Parts: sequence; structure tokens; C-alpha cells
Amino acid sequence: MHDDADPRPWDVLESQYLVRRPWLTVRQDRVRLPGGAIIEDYNIFEYPDWVNVLPVTRDGRIVLIRQYRHGSRAVHYELPAGICDATDADLEQSARRELLEETGYGGGEWARLATLSANPGTHANLSHTFLAKGVAWEREPSLEETEEIRVRVVGADELRAILALGGVLQALHAAPLYQYLLSLRA
Amino acid sequence: MHDDADPRPWDVLESQYLVRRPWLTVRQDRVRLPGGAIIEDYNIFEYPDWVNVLPVTRDGRIVLIRQYRHGSRAVHYELPAGICDATDADLEQSARRELLEETGYGGGEWARLATLSANPGTHANLSHTFLAKGVAWEREPSLEETEEIRVRVVGADELRAILALGGVLQALHAAPLYQYLLSLRA
Repeated sequence: MHDDADPRPWDVLESQYLVRRPWLTVRQDRVRLPGGAIIEDYNIFEYPDWVNVLPVTRDGRIVLIRQYRHGSRAVHYELPAGICDATDADLEQSARRELLEETGYGGGEWARLATLSANPGTHANLSHTFLAKGVAWEREPSLEETEEIRVRVVGADELRAILALGGVLQALHAAPLYQYLLSLRA
Repeated sequence: MHDDADPRPWDVLESQYLVRRPWLTVRQDRVRLPGGAIIEDYNIFEYPDWVNVLPVTRDGRIVLIRQYRHGSRAVHYELPAGICDATDADLEQSARRELLEETGYGGGEWARLATLSANPGTHANLSHTFLAKGVAWEREPSLEETEEIRVRVVGADELRAILALGGVLQALHAAPLYQYLLSLRA
């Protein structure tokens, strides 16, 4: 979707790391803009890619979770989600693992639904959404010590009401949920 | 939308700032989880709230912009957007100012459409979307030296095609765009 009149990319003159921790990596670039201006310290967050799943049961209900998030200091509805571990074979395997761990649901027919960024101005990584149709409950979830998650299975009409009330705060999850609801009305 | 069985919030035992710069503030919390586990260094990004506008012209077309973003190192479609300046009276004024500066469009009837987070696990701030119906071109945009922006006015069918091709990478913008397209089919 390139456009000949598009703004041109920035040149990176120097890069260094401002913070390198297990859960936070901040790169600092010295960049030259197309018009010649220099930005001395443009900061970028580097993360592994993220995955999430929009799981739909055989009877058309959507498997959501509720989780406390410490940035917003609130509990909202979310998609089952996680990061791509180095031990996962590919993005879909990461997403299947997270779905099973967080909800106990598995199986179904999987397809890529969306690729988004939490903020392309600051984040170098992407978030990949899979649509999993026909998932079924397989076993109890297996949560990490720091995870406290409630599973909620809702119909499409209830999902739309939840979205209308601001029940999904995470934009990376709200976007594919709206995309899915729109596809049902195609 | 509280649920009695919801996960409980975390207790903050200590807070300090890991980074305090004009464009990057990272708070580090020592937190106690409901189950008793302690996380020594949970990092949160503090920003001003963000605003964006979904501007619709009198003939039903949507005013988008194209902009290079250095996190993704790519150009995608976006909504006109910015931060809430301390000098703005309220969120709507911030959004009206950004729309006029970035696109030259103004006027119309304004309403809140969505409140989302780039990532509620890491961001303390929110992003507010306004739907502006009936905007019209008023003057040339007034861009900052570091801004290079192209304005693209598209119909609803073209917007849907752009979204389907991954043309909007920013989840904070994709979500309200899908929400708007879904509302047209209510």
C-alpha cells in the first residue's frame, strides 16, 4: 500500500540502549528527518512480538478473559494473549499455548485476523491476532503465579454491548473484536 | 461493569521514577499481588492523555492522514491525533486543535466515540476518540518542523478495504474506525 507521495522514513545516525531489563528495553536513536532536522534522543520500546486469540466456540460464543492491569489500575475484558516465546515454533503456536494456559480452551480452525501496533510511534514490535473458530473446553487453565484471570464466554450481542460500554480498554483487542463483529454483518 | 468475582487490584508498596524525560516517563512500582507475591520492579509509562478524531465530511467521507512512524519504521493510515496540551481547555479542544493543525479541517458536530489504552499493562494514560460529523476544509495545515503528513479523504467502502489490507497499523485508530463502520450497519 505504498504511495509515491508518502512521507519519507527517518535516517538513524546512532543507536544506543537507555534501558535493558528483562521486561523493558528502551532504544535511543539519534535520527535525521527528511527535511534535515535532527532529533537527538528518539526513544523506542523493543519487545518480542505479541499474540492474541479471538476464540469462537462451536455455538458462536466468544471466549474472553477479565484481568487486572496495573497501567490502568483496572479490570477489563480482554482477549487471551501473551508474548512469542523463543521456544514456540511460530506465532500460531504461541497463541494456541496462551489460549490453553489462560482459558483451558483449544482446538478449532485457526486463521490470521489482524496485525496491529500498540503505538507505531514508540513500539518496534507488532501484535498478531488469530481467529480460532470452533474452540472447545479441554482442561483447567494453568496460570502463572502472577496471573489471576477469569474466563467469560459471551454471545455476539453481549460482546457488542460490552464494547459499547467501554468494557474492552485494550485497543489491540478492541480492534479485532470490532473487525470480527463487522465481518458477521458482511 | 464491575464483577464481584473480578481479580483484585495490586497494592503499590513503593514508587520511584526510572526515567523522567520530556517525552518519556517510566515509573517503577514495587507491588504486592492479591495472592501475596511481590514484584520488585513493575514499570509503567506515564504520558499525558492522547486524543484523536474520526472526521467525517458532509458527504460521508473520512479524513485520514499518512505519516511515518519510527517505531514501526513504516508509513500507514492514521486518524489525526495528538496529546492533550496543558493549555487546552478540555479533551475536545485538544482534538479540534490537532485536526485543524494536521489536516486543515474543522467544524462539524462532535461526540465522544471511544476511550482506549495503547496497553493497560504498561500505560497509565488513556486515548480518547471523538467522532466529528460534517467537518469541512478551512485552511492549510500548520505542521511542526518534525511533522510530515499527507491528508487522504476516503469513502466508507475504501476505508473498509484499507483496514482489510492492514493499512491502519495503530490499534488506537483501527478500533474506532471499525467501531464506526459497524455503526453504519446497525
